[in-house]
Amino acid sequence: MQGHPAAQTKQQDSGNPLERMAHLLNDDMKKVNELILHRMKSEVPMIPQLAGYLIASGGKRIRPLLTLAATRLYDGETSRPYALASAVEFIHTATLLHDDVVDDSVERRGNPSANVVYGNQASVLVGDFLFSRAFQLMVEDGSLDALRILSDASAVIAEGEVLQLSFANDMTLTLEQYEKIIACKTAELFAAACEIGPILAGQDKDVVKMLREYGFNLGMAFQIADDVLDYTADQEKLGKTVGDDFREGKLTAPVIFALSDADEGEKAFWQRTMEDRIQREEDLPRALEILKKHKSFNKGMELARAYAKKAQDNLKDAPKGELRDLLKELATFSVERAY
Amino acid sequence: MQGHPAAQTKQQDSGNPLERMAHLLNDDMKKVNELILHRMKSEVPMIPQLAGYLIASGGKRIRPLLTLAATRLYDGETSRPYALASAVEFIHTATLLHDDVVDDSVERRGNPSANVVYGNQASVLVGDFLFSRAFQLMVEDGSLDALRILSDASAVIAEGEVLQLSFANDMTLTLEQYEKIIACKTAELFAAACEIGPILAGQDKDVVKMLREYGFNLGMAFQIADDVLDYTADQEKLGKTVGDDFREGKLTAPVIFALSDADEGEKAFWQRTMEDRIQREEDLPRALEILKKHKSFNKGMELARAYAKKAQDNLKDAPKGELRDLLKELATFSVERAY
Repeated sequence: MQGHPAAQTKQQDSGNPLERMAHLLNDDMKKVNELILHRMKSEVPMIPQLAGYLIASGGKRIRPLLTLAATRLYDGETSRPYALASAVEFIHTATLLHDDVVDDSVERRGNPSANVVYGNQASVLVGDFLFSRAFQLMVEDGSLDALRILSDASAVIAEGEVLQLSFANDMTLTLEQYEKIIACKTAELFAAACEIGPILAGQDKDVVKMLREYGFNLGMAFQIADDVLDYTADQEKLGKTVGDDFREGKLTAPVIFALSDADEGEKAFWQRTMEDRIQREEDLPRALEILKKHKSFNKGMELARAYAKKAQDNLKDAPKGELRDLLKELATFSVERAY
Repeated sequence: MQGHPAAQTKQQDSGNPLERMAHLLNDDMKKVNELILHRMKSEVPMIPQLAGYLIASGGKRIRPLLTLAATRLYDGETSRPYALASAVEFIHTATLLHDDVVDDSVERRGNPSANVVYGNQASVLVGDFLFSRAFQLMVEDGSLDALRILSDASAVIAEGEVLQLSFANDMTLTLEQYEKIIACKTAELFAAACEIGPILAGQDKDVVKMLREYGFNLGMAFQIADDVLDYTADQEKLGKTVGDDFREGKLTAPVIFALSDADEGEKAFWQRTMEDRIQREEDLPRALEILKKHKSFNKGMELARAYAKKAQDNLKDAPKGELRDLLKELATFSVERAY
């Protein structure tokens, strides 16, 4: 896929910051992708089949890219981020597999989800396998710091998922509790993915903390925007059905904002549709109407933008250059993307 | 629970080797149990509730006991096995939670299983949490060898579970394939639990290998006997329903032996009941009759005894003493127990 240098430059300039970062770190990402494919192998055929189905289905690989970028800010040479970037992606993939079982999802990235194609049982067990593989990769690298960061992150992710389950269809969920859930289930792994970089590059605590905070705020911005996009995105680009959270009765930022301004009729509507989960065909358009009326999407986007701004500020002392610029742009893009 | 010394000795002499080992290592096991209770805590209430439901439900704690015993054979002082014995039990508990979801089980240790009480979703996620906690405990200990052993074991367990799922209701499963499955899903964690001991005690490779092999063979004996007991045990003592494997169409040693000697009518019977899973009330008694006719239970027990014998032989060069005697007796007990 080697093109003319000028064409490459054009592609690099014209893409979104995620694509441009993938382009800039192309050699590194190739190594990571090779390692991911190599290490999802098993003599049990169902494992690479199922893992490959999800991993090859066009995920954005944002988390391993963050590990690579956070390393390369400080060290252009070390090959150590490959194993750990792969471990981060395996942990993410394992959580996706288990999430789709827990949420009884039917679609992921525009395709039927793995639990639909291979069954819930296989999704649970292959998730466990990928999770174990992640730890094998970390052990091979041998950094106890990285092992601590990612085992802590894994525990926090699981806590976030259980917390989310505890609040399923619960109208009393506050914005603070919602932020706690997404901090655990999303921002924590973004934070860990970034934190590993300066550790591998031998940077001191302040730098490690700075990158961790960048990752955390980026993850918060990303997830809040994701939760708005669940209602507002172009269905084809989103790669999943619009309104999934509504149908599942999963309270996210937009509905939490709308609930705080709801009149009695609207309260009854949310109660019936999301808490009691009695839904009719006309309910999603009605929900969208109420959400728009209360400017809930705007409020959600404002919250996401505030986190994106924090993420950019976190990088003010990071080494100047294309990589830092892209990481800053990525914060904006995570909020302003259309899908 | 301090009794009169004579009474204690009596209790110690009269129990089975597992109880006597727990008694001998009582101070150590207290520390492990405290650590288990302490580390299953979370600010998300559902986690300690669900984990505690299973962990407090009277498991035999055989795996952490093995880690303690394998350490104490060589080192009477170190407190390092506590974290790792707890990690081993957390990994085991996580696999039980996921197993019960995958098998759609309704009972475990004589109680409704966690998936029935708390739901499949919570069981999957709390399993993930306990698995992460296990790795946090290992990281705190800081032994990369132990981390390698247990991350390898976790990957192998998951492979074994997926392999078992691949062969669900498949009459072509050979004895060799069955042994491969139980080697992965059971013997591997027994092996790892034992292997950690001499590593913590600073022993050389030969000793580590010896204990690993003991654990592996013990695990094989234990699981094959378990699979026979699934048909032959006293239901109350087994703590689960007799004939579960039959009803689930899960091929284990007894049916594999019976199939190799089956006439056409019997083949059709196994085909209908286990592969097609069309079962009537009188089918379990009929299955038991066929299994007895072909001496399938005896053959299963002989296979289990051969592994138990190997496990005992593995310990011939281990330090002489009460602990070695108990580990040897445990191999016999794992086969000859009534439940």
